Amino acid sequence: SMDGAPPPTSPTGLSVYVAVSQLLGLTLLATTGAWLGRYRGGVAWHSPLQFNAHPLCMVLGMVFLQGDALLVYRVFRHEAKRSTKALHALLHGLALVIALVGIIAVFESHQTKGIPDMYSLHSWCGMATFVLYLLQWFLGCSFFLFPGASFLLRGWYKPQHIFFGITLFILSITSCLLGITEMLLFKLSDSYSHFVPEGILANTLGVLLVAFGLVVGYVLTREEWKRPPLAEELALSMDFKTLTEGESPGGGS
Amino acid sequence: SMDGAPPPTSPTGLSVYVAVSQLLGLTLLATTGAWLGRYRGGVAWHSPLQFNAHPLCMVLGMVFLQGDALLVYRVFRHEAKRSTKALHALLHGLALVIALVGIIAVFESHQTKGIPDMYSLHSWCGMATFVLYLLQWFLGCSFFLFPGASFLLRGWYKPQHIFFGITLFILSITSCLLGITEMLLFKLSDSYSHFVPEGILANTLGVLLVAFGLVVGYVLTREEWKRPPLAEELALSMDFKTLTEGESPGGGS
Repeated sequence: SMDGAPPPTSPTGLSVYVAVSQLLGLTLLATTGAWLGRYRGGVAWHSPLQFNAHPLCMVLGMVFLQGDALLVYRVFRHEAKRSTKALHALLHGLALVIALVGIIAVFESHQTKGIPDMYSLHSWCGMATFVLYLLQWFLGCSFFLFPGASFLLRGWYKPQHIFFGITLFILSITSCLLGITEMLLFKLSDSYSHFVPEGILANTLGVLLVAFGLVVGYVLTREEWKRPPLAEELALSMDFKTLTEGESPGGGS
Repeated sequence: SMDGAPPPTSPTGLSVYVAVSQLLGLTLLATTGAWLGRYRGGVAWHSPLQFNAHPLCMVLGMVFLQGDALLVYRVFRHEAKRSTKALHALLHGLALVIALVGIIAVFESHQTKGIPDMYSLHSWCGMATFVLYLLQWFLGCSFFLFPGASFLLRGWYKPQHIFFGITLFILSITSCLLGITEMLLFKLSDSYSHFVPEGILANTLGVLLVAFGLVVGYVLTREEWKRPPLAEELALSMDFKTLTEGESPGGGS
């Protein structure tokens, strides 16, 4: 190897996987749009089509944007941590707003049609995921974005934040698959078992959701692709470590 | 710290989480049994109840046993690697056999009742998961259990095996949730939305499945709980490393 400094470009494999994830993400949105547009009459607010805003918003917010928010530390691996963090929080915030619109859509649509709320496994999983996602966003902002939390507290919370972040992403995709299954059984009923095109298309959307989650998950968990600390971040954390351990800088631990 | 040797007991936190996972796993099986026994007439082969063998076998094989197979390297952290590996392969093998029985149950039941196969998102996800799980088991046995594969090949495959192992466990739980949703919509139809006890019980089973996955996933991914290599394994891998790097044992790399 030439020297110890991190290379200015990203690993080739990482770029390929990130590109594939974005292609999958766009295909996901296009497939959702095709399903709702071609077979379900399209999307509109304050109309019998209001329900259709629900799947569209949830796929866009809770899957595509949430997934991209998780990827920012890999994609912008050589940017300053503070700006990458801000982008991470911003994308999750945007995902939350869009998901909220999607949740309002289904509650208003149920009210108009006299359908009870929150009885299905889809609604239980989906609502739990949304509420915990909102909580995780508030905790993330308080611990990492505002200057109040100590280094020690941040160090304790960070692995929890990462574990629950990936968990909530998986639960979001699972909730979408449950929603697709519910919608197909309600709208297609018997014709679903005759392999009608709408059923095949919506099943394919489910497979694409799993594929998106798989690629994002692979990028996030691959050890060599984790964001390397910048030189100044390393210096800072070493100063802090020697400080808390009560030793002089430069001394071994 | 007293000395560098690993302590003979497991970390307390780990034992607590493993105990919780086993309690959840047993509750999972009891809840599945209660649902099928109390509301679905019980389980029997070659009878109209044959279908009910499907959910029971899938929860037992693809969730409980698969989950426990993943935990063996954490639970038996101070045992010889070779016996832990054999137990890992054995539990996965048992899970595969039980899952196969569950798959035969649903295909035979469909045939008897004239219901088409493989049209739903549940069947697509479930079948893909089972086939890939079988493939992963064969690959795992060939690479790690039989002496043919080189250390280099094992070193390359190991992170892939771990990533896809956790992925297949998550997909198994997701497939179960899809199956629960399908079964409730078919069997309860309108009464599901009136919060009948069977719906609440089966939704609770879904939540328990997610909780089991969450606890097992937390145990598997926590860095401090990973299996520490035994002294003799370390010596072996260092001998091998110096060998492949063409240096004399004891020299720095």
